Amino acid sequence: MGMNEKEFVKEVTPRTENFSQWYLDLVLKTELMDYAPVKGCMAIRPYGFAIWENMKELLDRRIKETGHQNAYFPLFIPESLLQKEAEHVEGFAPEVALVTHGGNEKLSERLVVRPTSEAIICSMYAKWVQSWRDLPLLINQWCNVVRWEKTTRPFLRTSEFLWQEGHTVHCTEEEAETEALQMLGVYKDFVESELAVPVISGLKTEREKFAGALHTYTIEALMADGRALQAGTSHNLGQHFSKVFDIQYLDKDKQLKYAWQTSWGVSTRLIGALIMVHGDDRGLRLPPQVAPLQAVIVPVITKKKREAVLQKCREILEELTGTVRVHLDQRAEYSVGWKFNEWEMKGVPLRLEVGPRDLEQGVALAVRRDTGEKSAIPLADLAQQVPLFLKDIQASLFQQAADFLKKNTHRVHSYQEFKDVLAEKKGFVLGFWCGAADCEEKIKDETKATIRCMPLETAQKETGPCLFCGQKGKIAYFARAY
Amino acid sequence: MGMNEKEFVKEVTPRTENFSQWYLDLVLKTELMDYAPVKGCMAIRPYGFAIWENMKELLDRRIKETGHQNAYFPLFIPESLLQKEAEHVEGFAPEVALVTHGGNEKLSERLVVRPTSEAIICSMYAKWVQSWRDLPLLINQWCNVVRWEKTTRPFLRTSEFLWQEGHTVHCTEEEAETEALQMLGVYKDFVESELAVPVISGLKTEREKFAGALHTYTIEALMADGRALQAGTSHNLGQHFSKVFDIQYLDKDKQLKYAWQTSWGVSTRLIGALIMVHGDDRGLRLPPQVAPLQAVIVPVITKKKREAVLQKCREILEELTGTVRVHLDQRAEYSVGWKFNEWEMKGVPLRLEVGPRDLEQGVALAVRRDTGEKSAIPLADLAQQVPLFLKDIQASLFQQAADFLKKNTHRVHSYQEFKDVLAEKKGFVLGFWCGAADCEEKIKDETKATIRCMPLETAQKETGPCLFCGQKGKIAYFARAY
Repeated sequence: MGMNEKEFVKEVTPRTENFSQWYLDLVLKTELMDYAPVKGCMAIRPYGFAIWENMKELLDRRIKETGHQNAYFPLFIPESLLQKEAEHVEGFAPEVALVTHGGNEKLSERLVVRPTSEAIICSMYAKWVQSWRDLPLLINQWCNVVRWEKTTRPFLRTSEFLWQEGHTVHCTEEEAETEALQMLGVYKDFVESELAVPVISGLKTEREKFAGALHTYTIEALMADGRALQAGTSHNLGQHFSKVFDIQYLDKDKQLKYAWQTSWGVSTRLIGALIMVHGDDRGLRLPPQVAPLQAVIVPVITKKKREAVLQKCREILEELTGTVRVHLDQRAEYSVGWKFNEWEMKGVPLRLEVGPRDLEQGVALAVRRDTGEKSAIPLADLAQQVPLFLKDIQASLFQQAADFLKKNTHRVHSYQEFKDVLAEKKGFVLGFWCGAADCEEKIKDETKATIRCMPLETAQKETGPCLFCGQKGKIAYFARAY
Repeated sequence: MGMNEKEFVKEVTPRTENFSQWYLDLVLKTELMDYAPVKGCMAIRPYGFAIWENMKELLDRRIKETGHQNAYFPLFIPESLLQKEAEHVEGFAPEVALVTHGGNEKLSERLVVRPTSEAIICSMYAKWVQSWRDLPLLINQWCNVVRWEKTTRPFLRTSEFLWQEGHTVHCTEEEAETEALQMLGVYKDFVESELAVPVISGLKTEREKFAGALHTYTIEALMADGRALQAGTSHNLGQHFSKVFDIQYLDKDKQLKYAWQTSWGVSTRLIGALIMVHGDDRGLRLPPQVAPLQAVIVPVITKKKREAVLQKCREILEELTGTVRVHLDQRAEYSVGWKFNEWEMKGVPLRLEVGPRDLEQGVALAVRRDTGEKSAIPLADLAQQVPLFLKDIQASLFQQAADFLKKNTHRVHSYQEFKDVLAEKKGFVLGFWCGAADCEEKIKDETKATIRCMPLETAQKETGPCLFCGQKGKIAYFARAY
């Protein structure tokens, strides 16, 4: 191991030593992002953006398969428009960026850079929705949004971030509710199948719901440090926005009625979840489904056999291209050991080593990033075996995370037990809660744990005494969260 | 033809009567866009956005095939950063939107909403480029940009628009020049092959070049009203930005050198080009490669055979799905005639009519949007025939536009002839120009025609007397432009 290799690894703080620093070191070192010269903003570098592109493609397909179409609405919202829905403006007012000048002149009305697009979209929907024939209206957009954050952290909380936001309009309350739950299911399936991140799903409390929604559904993931991360939300907006923006439709019975709405979104924050769920001391471990590179071929070169080894590597590259996202690391200026470390840190699921001895035996050495396991694969079987390895790695990463989630979900029956678990074990803590905002807030003040969600009603049967006040309550998931 | 149908068609001004009004009527009526409650901004509706998604996919593939990777840089640029490159700031200063407040507080430095991203990207590249090993750096981003425009027009000129911007860094001037020309070629191929829009390509004059570039290459298309439209530009930035943003690399010879750069972009303006090149009095005519729907099945229903016709239409839908982007119009509340008009207006390349008589004969009637031509196709041949029809429509739209371009490109030899051609025939006018900004400006003032481009040097052999001053000049393409 040369000097370079040591230096390379040394620069990332061990995860077990300081989780937060490990995360910051890793996102920089693996070139997922870099800090930009604007407070709280980042540049998403090609390696990080390729993860987002893969996520986007896989989720966009699901969004379209459920009947939605993409569109694009303006970045700017006139301040008066945002202020129409009272709860909504209250929720976002402290976070907005304001444009006051355009083309060297002061604007007559200030423009808000969208923190979310309900206001601007509803103002358009009011024109587009006239009759029951126009419904349901099922639109999604992929865009950037801005929320002026005081404390920021790459991917998890930045002043500007990328996301998708779905905005739908329906004839009835029931249809809107069905839609909100459908999209919650789409998110859960997407995050679990493609990101290999298991989630719990449920209903947000009134305190934690989206500003302006009737109610908010959420999927919540558990990071490796035992803290929860809200990974996606789906809102039943009820008629809050349709009433203030006047979205009415003429129903079949010739009556003019206010429409029912939903909105739902996930963001680049999911990249943070990927890192904090799967990463280890050696770096990222990316699930094959969203990894920019699924396999990397590293020639193990000796002076003698250099050309023969490289030639074989190029043949393997050609054979795998089109089937998997594969790269051949031909760089002459780095040692083999340095390359191994770098691709491990970058989280490439499978490394294929090809050296002179492998050549003689007609094999490549496959090294799994998830387990470190090594297997010699006959060259003739590579095209068939590599996709199977990737499938297995995807499943194994999910299983490891699911085991971790299970192990770190604790059922408690008293407030003392609740506090003990939070202090010693972290993770999700399940206990009864009476539904009072007061109890919720006091628990948060005293323990820093918030209610992440309540299981959906269909799954809610048990009742018992509230952890805090002892009144009759239902099950809630608590955790300290990002 | 019922009342509805007449009304539907009446709402769009004939193209031949008022081209500009025809355009505005059409983009609204076909639901490509709608005006938003922010000055100069628009909402791109699903039908318009689907065209952009198809364009994006086809161009993104070409950008990646030429070795570029996508990334994402911040929306906001600190004002001081934009002001670093003198020509650049001068070019964009009158057009920028400024953020002055964030999170209820006045910002210490105002932020510019990106009008283009050279400044913010170069500030990052200065960190990322250290050695010749880091070059070439080939990055592209798809994003929104804002330019505060005084007069706006849907798709062609809006305060916010969507685009892609490539930003590359190279070791040598020659490599940067090769890259700029390569991307010009990529744009030309993309616009001609996928949008069926023929273009001329060449070099912009100093007056018309991008603010901050060494020189700018352009592709220019001719709209059906005889005005030119700049459809894409590729800039050799030289070392202008690398010197002010300090992008230096350590070369193999151990010398620290300033890098050479390019940038290049196309935008949602291309949707405008599509409409104005191919559209006619009956509406849009979309090239199959980018049409949201390539074929629409319209059941011609009589009371008697209703279910049999619908059943056959569903079978056709199923057979074509996956091969072409196809839709079955099952709406019961609209007449067949109304549907014909609507899909023609929306520019769907091929309509498949299926009625009771067609059913008996085992055929569907295929009606081409480009020519209006009708052919009976045996049902058994549809899956094979429809893609061939689409290919032919794509080629025919290109040929029609290429013929129009040729017919409307005029070679002139005197200033009087130049003015006569512009007054009577419009289109591109080729003539000699001495290279003086003064002649260029006077010609513009007197005729409203600008130099769209000069043929690339390799194609420039002839010389002759400047149209305006009579000094020795080279060939230039003039036109009145959007």
